[in-house]
Amino acid sequence: MIDPRTIVINQRLSKINRIVAVSSGKGGVGKSMIATALALSLSKEGCKVGLFDLDFTGPSTHIILGVPSNVQPEEEKGLIPPKVEGLEYMSLVYFVGDHPAPLRGIDVSNALVELLSVTRWGELDFLVIDMPPGIGDAVLDLIRLVERIEFLIVTTPSFLAFEVVKKQLSLLCELKIPIIGVIENMQMDKSNCVQAETEKIGLSYLGKIPYDSKVEVSIGNPTELLETTIGKALAQIKKSKSELRCRIKQ
Amino acid sequence: MIDPRTIVINQRLSKINRIVAVSSGKGGVGKSMIATALALSLSKEGCKVGLFDLDFTGPSTHIILGVPSNVQPEEEKGLIPPKVEGLEYMSLVYFVGDHPAPLRGIDVSNALVELLSVTRWGELDFLVIDMPPGIGDAVLDLIRLVERIEFLIVTTPSFLAFEVVKKQLSLLCELKIPIIGVIENMQMDKSNCVQAETEKIGLSYLGKIPYDSKVEVSIGNPTELLETTIGKALAQIKKSKSELRCRIKQ
Repeated sequence: MIDPRTIVINQRLSKINRIVAVSSGKGGVGKSMIATALALSLSKEGCKVGLFDLDFTGPSTHIILGVPSNVQPEEEKGLIPPKVEGLEYMSLVYFVGDHPAPLRGIDVSNALVELLSVTRWGELDFLVIDMPPGIGDAVLDLIRLVERIEFLIVTTPSFLAFEVVKKQLSLLCELKIPIIGVIENMQMDKSNCVQAETEKIGLSYLGKIPYDSKVEVSIGNPTELLETTIGKALAQIKKSKSELRCRIKQ
Repeated sequence: MIDPRTIVINQRLSKINRIVAVSSGKGGVGKSMIATALALSLSKEGCKVGLFDLDFTGPSTHIILGVPSNVQPEEEKGLIPPKVEGLEYMSLVYFVGDHPAPLRGIDVSNALVELLSVTRWGELDFLVIDMPPGIGDAVLDLIRLVERIEFLIVTTPSFLAFEVVKKQLSLLCELKIPIIGVIENMQMDKSNCVQAETEKIGLSYLGKIPYDSKVEVSIGNPTELLETTIGKALAQIKKSKSELRCRIKQ
């Protein structure tokens, strides 16, 4: 039998123009920062944007955005995401709060299906999803459940990080999942290694973001985040690469 | 029915004095570097040490150690780990190689049970396990399957990282799992925030490791790794804290 919820998922997502999963094979590369900054930056440009925190290893975009703990989705034939900083904002944190959520893979799948099938997004130009690191259940299910999913991959220049990220890239390529491109975060020197390797696989290298100690200080303050190298680099990437440009309704 | 393999696991581990899972709620904190350096450093002191890479999100200790790809375990009534840099060394990489391993939770559990039940460790003072980040299947199963497991937790000073790590600490405390202590890696300023919060929960703060760009350069060269701030700080921690001292057979 097919879980009846999986049928409604793509109906729920039908009013969304593009669905972008910000993802990384490796943890700790600044994925949540980039997902949040991307959503904010697209919204500031005039796009209608949703941000969906599905990082099962520990949601953190609510901390980055400084969302007060009394902000909750509204229940009405499903869940309507509250507006936070202009974004339609949905997060696992509404359900787990500050408690540890030691979910097994099967529970991750269930929670993912449930959340995707109950959330009532409005008309959006972009839905940005903050994914957990790796290529485990959440990533595999999202690929299975969400037609039209596109991946934006984050890495750091660290050899170890990129070795792990390359495996994720190879899996996504094998599954023929669209990859918008690779962003190199926390760059500390001038090495072009990640760029060269990305282009060798035939993927788009979107740009590098220099390490910026102000990113840590910006936590809880979205306006400051857009003033860090992350915010500035994303603005630049959107300008120079059409892949992430806001295509306001024709 | 109980999986018969789970019964043999603790027999397989019976000749090991201490089993230390190096773990972090958050990825990208340098967990694998610290697990490897700890194993090497204990071995250099005269301990008999095993290193077991169970990072299902992407094993990397073989890259840190510079293990040639032809090194493989020997099959003889199970698997006998090869010796690498004086360590009995076992890793997921022997089984997945350079390929992506998109395992669902249930497959992670299965692989973990299989590996724990077939690996024939010798007499060891320490078995150091490099765990995947988070509190998913691998961590939950290890707690369930391995009596006498102890956790060594790695974090960075980043507010986001420690927020996620705190959830893992709270889960481990709730389950009454022994925690050796918390190591703060990649420290960049003088903040005592992680130390204060760790001690507030009643856990041992083992020390801070300053950020060191030489760590990246040491990849593939174990001798150099022990010369970085990681190697030096671990030596210091072992000297000043009894929790990680090598207790050579009485």
